[in-house]
Amino acid sequence: MRPNIKNIAVLTSGGDAPGMNACIRAVVRTGIYNGINMFGVLQGYQGLITNNIIPMDARSVSNIIHMGGTILKTARCLEFKTDEGQDLAFENLKAHNIDALVVIGGDGTFTGARRFAQRHQINVIGVPGTIDNDLYGSDFTLGYDTAMNTVVEAIDKIRDTADAHDRLFFVEVMGRDSGCIALRSAIACGAEAVLLPEKETSIDELVKQLGAGAVTKKTSSIVIVSEGHKQGGAYDIAKHVKERFDHYDTKVTILGHLQRGGSPSSFDRILASRLGYAAVNELLKGSTQMMVGLRGNEIALTSLDEALTEHNFKLESDLLEMTHVLSI
Amino acid sequence: MRPNIKNIAVLTSGGDAPGMNACIRAVVRTGIYNGINMFGVLQGYQGLITNNIIPMDARSVSNIIHMGGTILKTARCLEFKTDEGQDLAFENLKAHNIDALVVIGGDGTFTGARRFAQRHQINVIGVPGTIDNDLYGSDFTLGYDTAMNTVVEAIDKIRDTADAHDRLFFVEVMGRDSGCIALRSAIACGAEAVLLPEKETSIDELVKQLGAGAVTKKTSSIVIVSEGHKQGGAYDIAKHVKERFDHYDTKVTILGHLQRGGSPSSFDRILASRLGYAAVNELLKGSTQMMVGLRGNEIALTSLDEALTEHNFKLESDLLEMTHVLSI
Amino acid sequence: MRPNIKNIAVLTSGGDAPGMNACIRAVVRTGIYNGINMFGVLQGYQGLITNNIIPMDARSVSNIIHMGGTILKTARCLEFKTDEGQDLAFENLKAHNIDALVVIGGDGTFTGARRFAQRHQINVIGVPGTIDNDLYGSDFTLGYDTAMNTVVEAIDKIRDTADAHDRLFFVEVMGRDSGCIALRSAIACGAEAVLLPEKETSIDELVKQLGAGAVTKKTSSIVIVSEGHKQGGAYDIAKHVKERFDHYDTKVTILGHLQRGGSPSSFDRILASRLGYAAVNELLKGSTQMMVGLRGNEIALTSLDEALTEHNFKLESDLLEMTHVLSI
Amino acid sequence: MRPNIKNIAVLTSGGDAPGMNACIRAVVRTGIYNGINMFGVLQGYQGLITNNIIPMDARSVSNIIHMGGTILKTARCLEFKTDEGQDLAFENLKAHNIDALVVIGGDGTFTGARRFAQRHQINVIGVPGTIDNDLYGSDFTLGYDTAMNTVVEAIDKIRDTADAHDRLFFVEVMGRDSGCIALRSAIACGAEAVLLPEKETSIDELVKQLGAGAVTKKTSSIVIVSEGHKQGGAYDIAKHVKERFDHYDTKVTILGHLQRGGSPSSFDRILASRLGYAAVNELLKGSTQMMVGLRGNEIALTSLDEALTEHNFKLESDLLEMTHVLSI
Repeated sequence: MRPNIKNIAVLTSGGDAPGMNACIRAVVRTGIYNGINMFGVLQGYQGLITNNIIPMDARSVSNIIHMGGTILKTARCLEFKTDEGQDLAFENLKAHNIDALVVIGGDGTFTGARRFAQRHQINVIGVPGTIDNDLYGSDFTLGYDTAMNTVVEAIDKIRDTADAHDRLFFVEVMGRDSGCIALRSAIACGAEAVLLPEKETSIDELVKQLGAGAVTKKTSSIVIVSEGHKQGGAYDIAKHVKERFDHYDTKVTILGHLQRGGSPSSFDRILASRLGYAAVNELLKGSTQMMVGLRGNEIALTSLDEALTEHNFKLESDLLEMTHVLSI
Repeated sequence: MRPNIKNIAVLTSGGDAPGMNACIRAVVRTGIYNGINMFGVLQGYQGLITNNIIPMDARSVSNIIHMGGTILKTARCLEFKTDEGQDLAFENLKAHNIDALVVIGGDGTFTGARRFAQRHQINVIGVPGTIDNDLYGSDFTLGYDTAMNTVVEAIDKIRDTADAHDRLFFVEVMGRDSGCIALRSAIACGAEAVLLPEKETSIDELVKQLGAGAVTKKTSSIVIVSEGHKQGGAYDIAKHVKERFDHYDTKVTILGHLQRGGSPSSFDRILASRLGYAAVNELLKGSTQMMVGLRGNEIALTSLDEALTEHNFKLESDLLEMTHVLSI
Repeated sequence: MRPNIKNIAVLTSGGDAPGMNACIRAVVRTGIYNGINMFGVLQGYQGLITNNIIPMDARSVSNIIHMGGTILKTARCLEFKTDEGQDLAFENLKAHNIDALVVIGGDGTFTGARRFAQRHQINVIGVPGTIDNDLYGSDFTLGYDTAMNTVVEAIDKIRDTADAHDRLFFVEVMGRDSGCIALRSAIACGAEAVLLPEKETSIDELVKQLGAGAVTKKTSSIVIVSEGHKQGGAYDIAKHVKERFDHYDTKVTILGHLQRGGSPSSFDRILASRLGYAAVNELLKGSTQMMVGLRGNEIALTSLDEALTEHNFKLESDLLEMTHVLSI
Repeated sequence: MRPNIKNIAVLTSGGDAPGMNACIRAVVRTGIYNGINMFGVLQGYQGLITNNIIPMDARSVSNIIHMGGTILKTARCLEFKTDEGQDLAFENLKAHNIDALVVIGGDGTFTGARRFAQRHQINVIGVPGTIDNDLYGSDFTLGYDTAMNTVVEAIDKIRDTADAHDRLFFVEVMGRDSGCIALRSAIACGAEAVLLPEKETSIDELVKQLGAGAVTKKTSSIVIVSEGHKQGGAYDIAKHVKERFDHYDTKVTILGHLQRGGSPSSFDRILASRLGYAAVNELLKGSTQMMVGLRGNEIALTSLDEALTEHNFKLESDLLEMTHVLSI
């Protein structure tokens, strides 16, 4: 039985990720198609508190499916962690008669959403949106595929010049707690070594790996360093390696925030559209405190409780083993 | 128990697809890592018959992971469909002491491989490589993700100029029997309509859909036409629509074979690496007449028999319904 | 001495080209920086007649420098070719106290602008904006460089699959009267042959060229066909060649309007910024009926009279000769 | 009158740049077309000394026009700065009967070439190949246009996320002595500020510029830092700004060597083809100790003496002024 939902709002929160706009579009249009009045909240939870809430129609999401970033913007919001903040947010939603909320973001976003739905009479569905691909309940999160393509295209360019010069290149990629981008980009680029936050690798081990490459006549080596690696970032690692390994020149690239931007890949746009469409349909069926995700080729529901207590990305040891085999 | 395999050959057959080179690399290096002598067969099954077989080492697959096409080339080969052709191919393999074969390709490739393995004493593993994503046993085939990004980037460019001009654009994409690329690129680009080989759509219906868009003040419309649509290709459709709908200008793009090329996406490179690695490991475990695929995030085995009798891509009616909702 | 200019309008007309938005941004901001009130005219000359004229400030051109298309849109306008249309346009400009006009477009745009400035008391500067690169007075026109990169990236993808298969590919590119895109993309892609609107090439000659390639063991051939070629488009040519040359498979791609879209290249953005900046500065110096262009690395002024009577792109015979030498 | 040249060698030296392969291809095929025996020298001047010289035919440069890096590789070579090194190099060339040399590179490359041609009986033509665009005698150097597109695409991605978050982004680009890439990418990306090696900018001035942006409600700011800036690299600048300007979050990207790689742009491929073609034709006319360059749309010759004493890239003050006007 369909609950009596007439007004739905959508917001993006946390680090932005490619595909968020495609998801906003899907949420808004699916709502309107079903006769719902749709609203957008600007600046994430901050906008709930400051009442920065605007009506949205089908045209307000035209021509955004291909854009990086988020037209609703995001912001950090400490106040939403307080009872006062949560109550003020609820009052603002009620003033617009908003019955339900779609939140697009990561761990922190879902934590705030769960508490909000437990404290107040409002239905909430979460959509996993983060380039880190570290949420339980979905094979992929919005933005991860695009970020991977960005990283791989960058490293391909470095490989061109690496081949010309017999050098060691260190490339720092995002992933403070999760090595998913680092490990998988190492596979996709044929990197000679990868340093992950989940696994300690000593400079000795790294030098040994790189030395083996030299013996087999590889003409260049690329080392991918996750920003969360315990030995430090790419600069520090490069410095330590240089001390031990002086016949190679070492060069450093820090990709930084360009990994968060760019036009979403086809994969991310389809994922975003399916998840946004599913999020509204779930609200209309009465679901709440759930995350919509993709498992195989099917939409899957996970309770926010479960999504927040499990961790999706464990170090994929089989893939790590594979990087060693394939970079011989 | 590991069978007594000492020499493995790899070939690519059928239409080439981005990721084939990454897969060849993975096959060759996984074999060498395990002490196997590796061989490449040039020109697909044709090369088996003409004995165009070369030894490969770890360096012969350096710097190919990012390249489109296939370094082993492909060719059509009618002779391999005959008993004589199959027997000659087997003699050539025996002359090199080759015990097992990895074949990368689609339906036709697997049909040839199955017969070969049934007729002769040779172990064969198939890897799904085709941009059409129409094989049973794997969520994705090699090259599909890259082809999708190519199509989406092309249509994004058309959208730029469509917005400037109030025009109707018809874009023909690949997929003679499968509308997977057409349907999913329609979602990813926010196309106004899509014509699929699996579903008859009359010009009347199409005109009606496009007219509805005009009423809601959409400034431009893009129609994606699968090359296998029953009403003809994009040129024919555009001509018929023009006759009914004269206040719009109609323009046609035929993407053609550029959809088969390009540097493989990160997704395709990882898929190719995992499947190539798994193919050799399966041969070393004694598997034969199987296809390696990806289901969710796991490697899955399907017998060639099953892969050839089932069809993976059925028209995804839920996605087709979604395209109508999201293009309002 | 600076003339008494207080209000300037900008419009885009004719086929849209990447870089138009970057140019609009430069025109608007340069005007505002100099204390001028700036206006945008929507839909080109059509908007002058329908009074579709809006005020623009520095923020109204934020975040458009990287976008294809034109935020001011373009349209064809037969009415502006009549005295009544021109007079009505002038009345509308006067109603907004607009003293001067920047028009971005090609031949047709400049023809209209010259007549308008001759008939009425209004200063006009033209900016060359067309992907065809066929205007006298500027080494390059806005959008040409981006279109070239689009064509080259497309043909590179076709080359991947061409190498795999021993095929003949025919690629149709834009250029109804000018073979600039066709000739120069032939050089940039190493095409085996190119058919230009400026030069008749018989099927016999073409077959001869392609046959020579086969003899020297080239594994694939790409023929670029300008849409204005006298023997017909790529489809027709491919059909004729196929009849003579049956051991090759022939495949056709029609790039169509995707050549007009896409994010402008760095070159086009800088060109657009410089020309827009110069256009306003010239108006403030009292110039009128002039086109701003780039000659070498310097801004150059050409009268609209001269720009409209000379033709910039003559067939570059030296480059055509070079394509034959380099494709051996 | 054509000199008696029968054998020509080509080499790449210094930092590699996109377009070098397209140029090697043009040099080799132009030579072969004219009946010359062609040779490639591996590892730049190092290969002259170690006699790493190989014959090249038309097929040895097939399918490289679109590749970054250089198939001939480059290396630094201190020995070529000595008399002994130069003499040894000459002996090796004579052993192959090589009469003339095409060198592709920058300042350092030309310095070595000039001395070599003065000391020994050998004709030498230089081709300007460096991403820095800092050579006198050519409007553009090979690789500069591609590097610019790489930088601009990277900063576009950062802009996506900048808009979402109200942040200050610092992006370090190449150019130890020349701010050409920094200044022109600032224009192409609409950066809020740019720090150049040619011009001291104090942190106070920078903070003032960025503060002005905040007042006019710009939602994000990007600062481009040339690696040669006197106040330090992007990390140091970001740290200093952060101390003064605490309401903004600051983020840093170091593009590094990815700026040297990538498939060459259409512009660079055409430039490379024209210059390589001209270099061989000049040798066949008897020219020596000259650099071939592009001025406007024409090939221009400059003596190596002049190229090495003049400096092409002076700070373009008009463009710097323009960046301030256009980023209001």
